[in-house]
Amino acid sequence: LTTDFGSADAYAAAMKGVILDINPDAMLVDICHTIEPQSISQAAFVLGTVYEFFPQRTIHLVVVDPGVGTARRAIILRTPQADFVAPDNGVLSYVIQQYSIKTVDFESKQSEIAPGLEAVAITNPKLWRSPVSPTFHGRDIFAPVAAYLSTGLPLADFGEVISSIIVLPLSQPHKETDGTLTGHILHIDHFGNLITNVNPGDLPEKEQPVKVEVGNKLITGLNRTYAEGENLLALIGSSGRLEIALKNGNASICLNVRVGDEVKIGFLS
Amino acid sequence: LTTDFGSADAYAAAMKGVILDINPDAMLVDICHTIEPQSISQAAFVLGTVYEFFPQRTIHLVVVDPGVGTARRAIILRTPQADFVAPDNGVLSYVIQQYSIKTVDFESKQSEIAPGLEAVAITNPKLWRSPVSPTFHGRDIFAPVAAYLSTGLPLADFGEVISSIIVLPLSQPHKETDGTLTGHILHIDHFGNLITNVNPGDLPEKEQPVKVEVGNKLITGLNRTYAEGENLLALIGSSGRLEIALKNGNASICLNVRVGDEVKIGFLS
Amino acid sequence: LTTDFGSADAYAAAMKGVILDINPDAMLVDICHTIEPQSISQAAFVLGTVYEFFPQRTIHLVVVDPGVGTARRAIILRTPQADFVAPDNGVLSYVIQQYSIKTVDFESKQSEIAPGLEAVAITNPKLWRSPVSPTFHGRDIFAPVAAYLSTGLPLADFGEVISSIIVLPLSQPHKETDGTLTGHILHIDHFGNLITNVNPGDLPEKEQPVKVEVGNKLITGLNRTYAEGENLLALIGSSGRLEIALKNGNASICLNVRVGDEVKIGFLS
Repeated sequence: LTTDFGSADAYAAAMKGVILDINPDAMLVDICHTIEPQSISQAAFVLGTVYEFFPQRTIHLVVVDPGVGTARRAIILRTPQADFVAPDNGVLSYVIQQYSIKTVDFESKQSEIAPGLEAVAITNPKLWRSPVSPTFHGRDIFAPVAAYLSTGLPLADFGEVISSIIVLPLSQPHKETDGTLTGHILHIDHFGNLITNVNPGDLPEKEQPVKVEVGNKLITGLNRTYAEGENLLALIGSSGRLEIALKNGNASICLNVRVGDEVKIGFLS
Repeated sequence: LTTDFGSADAYAAAMKGVILDINPDAMLVDICHTIEPQSISQAAFVLGTVYEFFPQRTIHLVVVDPGVGTARRAIILRTPQADFVAPDNGVLSYVIQQYSIKTVDFESKQSEIAPGLEAVAITNPKLWRSPVSPTFHGRDIFAPVAAYLSTGLPLADFGEVISSIIVLPLSQPHKETDGTLTGHILHIDHFGNLITNVNPGDLPEKEQPVKVEVGNKLITGLNRTYAEGENLLALIGSSGRLEIALKNGNASICLNVRVGDEVKIGFLS
Repeated sequence: LTTDFGSADAYAAAMKGVILDINPDAMLVDICHTIEPQSISQAAFVLGTVYEFFPQRTIHLVVVDPGVGTARRAIILRTPQADFVAPDNGVLSYVIQQYSIKTVDFESKQSEIAPGLEAVAITNPKLWRSPVSPTFHGRDIFAPVAAYLSTGLPLADFGEVISSIIVLPLSQPHKETDGTLTGHILHIDHFGNLITNVNPGDLPEKEQPVKVEVGNKLITGLNRTYAEGENLLALIGSSGRLEIALKNGNASICLNVRVGDEVKIGFLS
């Protein structure tokens, strides 16, 4: 379960009650309920960092759904690794990116369903709660659908096959003419570490020293761990991306930066 | 489990450990641990919105217990839907309201146990941990009682039958002489939505347009979803109550209102 | 699971995914994920208050690990009550204290493993994920080790036996020449209660009245519960330690004190 429901209410619990009522043997695991309200991009990122660590055939129920009750579709996406039950609003962008790199048109905000994947629109109300609250599809549509899916019902029972789903315009680091890279901050984690959209593959030679400019500070070289080095440091983090951290502190507060801010990477030759 | 224990300590976990020690097959689901400290009314509301979505015969363990260690009773309430293990301090008011509407005397703060319900006082120390900490009955009394209840022990084993329990003075919207309704805010959720004590049944005709006055702002008409309309909007929320929301924002902050504040509903003829 | 991972990311969930991938029957219980970042002492305290309430042979996975990726050891400690999988950084100090009181040299920050306990260094990479991220041993080393341990693998499979582990300098209250005690605040809980390092055994006679001085306020006598007495009160809390509380309020805010601040106990004769 990944939602923006927070912890002050019983919204996530209502979904769990509905699931257990349909499948008492379901094992429920919370991924994150503190996605910033309505932040589809944050939910997409958090889900993207974690789904592959769960057992094959895990069902991921993702409800960050600012368009709840409107014409936006609800979908099931099946990949070789997992099933995803979610609104069709881009929250599965990082999942799609992994499988469909050739067919994603991030400009058009639509991605064709790549070979090996399957997707259906959730349109069969027989597998929903009734009546459906127009403001809480998580409880009345997504939760029962995920629960019935966990009991082994085939995808076709939930609705018709679809050929494309919505993706967010996922940014790639930009290569400048002088050879430097301009990336940006994708996520700031609980420790204040800044996770960027720069991957090790974007850094031309493993041995070539880099300098990282972020929030008007310059960091030279890559570290291996949070504990080595001094003060601000750059390293390849556990999500496989370039990360900026502050030794025993909070880089985000220290640098006064936000998600979306620029990170420049230069190379010392 | 519904408590005001927060997430910074191991209090909720201690209860879980005790339960699993008695019944290793128990399935534990957190409803909410961030009830405002000692807020019986908030716990009552949150529990009231969610318990009916859980499978029949779920045991709800509710520990918001400012009188822990004093003479207040501990009780088990059995309804056709669920069992509730809680202090007798009003935290089950919304549950009682559903079943006992005719016998509740909210003025006297006591409700008789309606036909079809059963209640016992928790008085048999053989089913508690020993010694009992006077400051943590959640761990030493409520958790083991809930665990033994889940193993199938009959109600009578836990203590004597009681004929009434304590209820909070649950407010109803007030009908003014000019036909308008005065309700108030029961709960402000994680998104800043204002959930009121006004039910659809309080609004005389489905088709008659309403205007809602809250925090010195006027909202005209009811919306169906959070995404439709502009700015501030009123709708019937997922708990079946009139709710005030701000499109893509936080109505509570925008209006600077609190739980208990008035909401006035007028009718446009 | 006890970590400082917070709730804004999927770090704890990644560990759960890894565990369930190895042992789908594992029952996962969160103890606390909101340990202050890198606070080994807080994690040690929280774990120390709760582990004994879990069923025997529970595996406690503790990841508060500022030295992740450096030369600090990873260990498994086996006690008659439970197994602990953790970095060797002092996070098991309260556990060790219970079993090893005679062999702990808190000055040297090393404790010999007492008879009846066993400990191994986690050195066998065959039971880890591969590759190991140098910044997330929780996911890549501790989680798989805990999962394999839960499937029944013997300790020897994980690494070589070790004879001592690191402990924190756990403070004891100091007896002054005038007979008063000087303790300090170990932990401030979610309710703002101040939990001290003073145990009932430090108070010479059960019947002798005490006075407690904390944050420039004086409290006379011990209460039994949070609800009795007036305003500020002292009592023996559920962890068996002297605790300072404010009736229906937050003692920590009222007194403006912090973890580590002094508490003086005098005796009225």
